[in-house]
Amino acid sequence: MTSLTAVPAYAAPSSKAPLERTTIERRPVGEHDVLIDIKFAGICHSDIHQAREGWGEAIFPMVPGHEIAGVVTEVGSGVTRHSVGDRVGIGCFVDSCRECEYCRQGLEQYCVRGNVPTYNGRDKNGDPTYGGYSRQIVADENYVLRIPDGLSLDVAAPLLCAGITTYSPLRHWNAGPGKKVAVIGLGGLGHMAVKLAHAMGAEVTVLSQSLRKKDDGLRLGADHYYATGDEATFTELRAGFDVILSTVSAPLPMDAYLRLLKVDGAFVNVGAPEEPNTVNMFSLIGGRKTLAGSAIGGIQETQEMLDFCAGHGLGAEIEVIRGDQINEAYERVLNSDVRYRFVIDTATI
Amino acid sequence: MTSLTAVPAYAAPSSKAPLERTTIERRPVGEHDVLIDIKFAGICHSDIHQAREGWGEAIFPMVPGHEIAGVVTEVGSGVTRHSVGDRVGIGCFVDSCRECEYCRQGLEQYCVRGNVPTYNGRDKNGDPTYGGYSRQIVADENYVLRIPDGLSLDVAAPLLCAGITTYSPLRHWNAGPGKKVAVIGLGGLGHMAVKLAHAMGAEVTVLSQSLRKKDDGLRLGADHYYATGDEATFTELRAGFDVILSTVSAPLPMDAYLRLLKVDGAFVNVGAPEEPNTVNMFSLIGGRKTLAGSAIGGIQETQEMLDFCAGHGLGAEIEVIRGDQINEAYERVLNSDVRYRFVIDTATI
Repeated sequence: MTSLTAVPAYAAPSSKAPLERTTIERRPVGEHDVLIDIKFAGICHSDIHQAREGWGEAIFPMVPGHEIAGVVTEVGSGVTRHSVGDRVGIGCFVDSCRECEYCRQGLEQYCVRGNVPTYNGRDKNGDPTYGGYSRQIVADENYVLRIPDGLSLDVAAPLLCAGITTYSPLRHWNAGPGKKVAVIGLGGLGHMAVKLAHAMGAEVTVLSQSLRKKDDGLRLGADHYYATGDEATFTELRAGFDVILSTVSAPLPMDAYLRLLKVDGAFVNVGAPEEPNTVNMFSLIGGRKTLAGSAIGGIQETQEMLDFCAGHGLGAEIEVIRGDQINEAYERVLNSDVRYRFVIDTATI
Repeated sequence: MTSLTAVPAYAAPSSKAPLERTTIERRPVGEHDVLIDIKFAGICHSDIHQAREGWGEAIFPMVPGHEIAGVVTEVGSGVTRHSVGDRVGIGCFVDSCRECEYCRQGLEQYCVRGNVPTYNGRDKNGDPTYGGYSRQIVADENYVLRIPDGLSLDVAAPLLCAGITTYSPLRHWNAGPGKKVAVIGLGGLGHMAVKLAHAMGAEVTVLSQSLRKKDDGLRLGADHYYATGDEATFTELRAGFDVILSTVSAPLPMDAYLRLLKVDGAFVNVGAPEEPNTVNMFSLIGGRKTLAGSAIGGIQETQEMLDFCAGHGLGAEIEVIRGDQINEAYERVLNSDVRYRFVIDTATI
């Protein structure tokens, strides 16, 4: 592909309109680029936030999708990391400055100059980036991950965002044997957090609004399952957790949740509420507690996560859909009516 | 002292009344107790919060004071840690359960059963505890600190709260060479934070409402001094700090301050605002940042802090007052009109 190629895709023409089938152009394959035939693309809640401008001004038309799994079909002359036929993935960003202290540490997600988002961003030439709801993508080899043989591409796709977004903070805050980890919300991120924390050896508790998904939670690896709609939960679990990972996008009664932490415990947000939260500083002072946030992960850690998942036989729980079901899927995500990730079969785009 | 002893003290009769001179009774010196002639007692902002019931229901009459320095005048038959004539101190608590996981780790400040506060608490017999605004105190030897020879008792007294409250989080969040530490507020806690962080080898910046105390701040060890009343401060210092230690008791614009942290930076509250703060979770997620709190320190760490201060020739900056100046001093503390700690000469009580 030495010239621009027209690629079928689904795009939101504006923040008010549903996604529709269209055609986009991908750049020619450069020296360090790979061309990927996308096979599956996950639907992340953040796709909806961005397509509807919930997180601020966005670039339209927008082709969402940053949970991409596919196969390499062409490589640039300088490519060394991937070969034609390799099973690969792309996550939330496709480039970064590569020079700042964070890029040099493999923390490209916190690149000082801002990394290049897989979609709803602009590449180094200023051109808009388009995501995974499409048939093909061209990307720099350094931002492309290997998908190990043990993982099917469909269940691997959501790992590129939902997987790494939960894996990274679980590692950073030392989830593992002897640690009690609570996961708030059993959705796309939450179900991966449960699987991963369990595989890391932690004792895992799901905190969900109701007990509706309890059987699923236990099957996925949770040791305990509590309804946060029941006030008794907050008494029974008081001072019980080393780490609480919140995967929900709604503001929470933070002081009540902070009481569930042990001394030196951490409440980590990976869900991103649009509204601010209110926190009493006494809730942190009494027990040297931490309220923190974490964003996805770096390239090296994302590869580590994929290898970890393959080693533990873990993938996402998915429902595969066609391109013409994307808009309906968005509504179902907003209604928490998905177990646990929609994945688009891009052959249907 | 084998029977109750009457001791002169200053007490608040109620939350609405000024402190007045009175007489309290101290318990007989038990097997593991020491009797201390108090020489100096610091006035902490939290004395005022509690004497005026700003932090909730309190026990009256109240003899505040948890920054106590004095000399041992009698020891119980089983005492091994202290001898008559020893220079000693007492901080914010005088007992704890000694059995919970935190007491066993030397984190008595986070005792699961709640430690016994030096004042405005109840001891294991249910009797109210009375603090340092008095001539003598009886305490269990295990909760009494050694004051090293290099430290005068007057400048040592405030270390028992202001010193350890800032020392402990600076250590916990690794202030030291190569680290950039900001201290919000140059008051009783803040001035100790500056001295300690500087002595630990960190690059220290004071963030104060105005530049009024700039000369003092630089003299105390700060490398830089900025006014938070100047909007340009928040642009210039963006992403500049590893640790921000907030010593102020007023709610702050948290999102603006969190932008001053580097990736993985921590904003630590030791000041305790009565009102909750508002925080946007995006301010934490973008940069894996931490909002935390910290309360005083354990007995072992408090001793370590006193030894560190003696080793570095550090004490508090103080203004010594008489007992009959306590009420006036309270007003001056509330007006930030003290450089930097009032210390009561208890011979004047």
